[in-house]
Amino acid sequence: MVLVVRGELRLTPGKAAVQVAHAAVALARVGESRAPSAFRSWWDAGQRKIALVAPTLQDLEELERRARQRGLPTVLIEDAGFTEVAPGTKTCLGIGPARSSEIDPLTGDLALL
Amino acid sequence: MVLVVRGELRLTPGKAAVQVAHAAVALARVGESRAPSAFRSWWDAGQRKIALVAPTLQDLEELERRARQRGLPTVLIEDAGFTEVAPGTKTCLGIGPARSSEIDPLTGDLALL
Repeated sequence: MVLVVRGELRLTPGKAAVQVAHAAVALARVGESRAPSAFRSWWDAGQRKIALVAPTLQDLEELERRARQRGLPTVLIEDAGFTEVAPGTKTCLGIGPARSSEIDPLTGDLALL
Repeated sequence: MVLVVRGELRLTPGKAAVQVAHAAVALARVGESRAPSAFRSWWDAGQRKIALVAPTLQDLEELERRARQRGLPTVLIEDAGFTEVAPGTKTCLGIGPARSSEIDPLTGDLALL
């Protein structure tokens, strides 16, 4: 599972962590119900998560498009906007759970958060 | 839901975010199966999450003890230790989902991550 924060928002570490957690919880719930086999493989292997950063919303949306083309689960988090950002701001893209070999070609050039 | 990172480990923002996400996913799964009513209330209210920091492992364990005494769900994450910390290192305490009025008395004096 890869969680990609929108860098241009310059979120605090805590706010970024919460966006990453929103995406991880959403992907885990959807994965468990819709793709239980992939979910179970991911869970049993230690629920691996990697937090990355992409500069802009355009980068996140392009990455989302490419992940969907490959049939990978995605979620794009919109923050409720109580702090730091306006309501509805898109903050974080989550991809997975899926094998590293499926996700890495899409995200391998992004920096760690 | 409150996620408390162990400050003395001085994790990078990305590593801390992943620990927060580990705790959030674990609490959400346990909550959904064991306390579906509280889970549903939390989910419908926007899945609120707050990332905090406590200085030491002793602080996390004391907080875990107090939360359990009050009957709140808790999880203490042990990292697999591939990067930054040794395998089995306790990195993050999660509490909830529960009402703010139940959690805030325990965590209200902690700093934001």
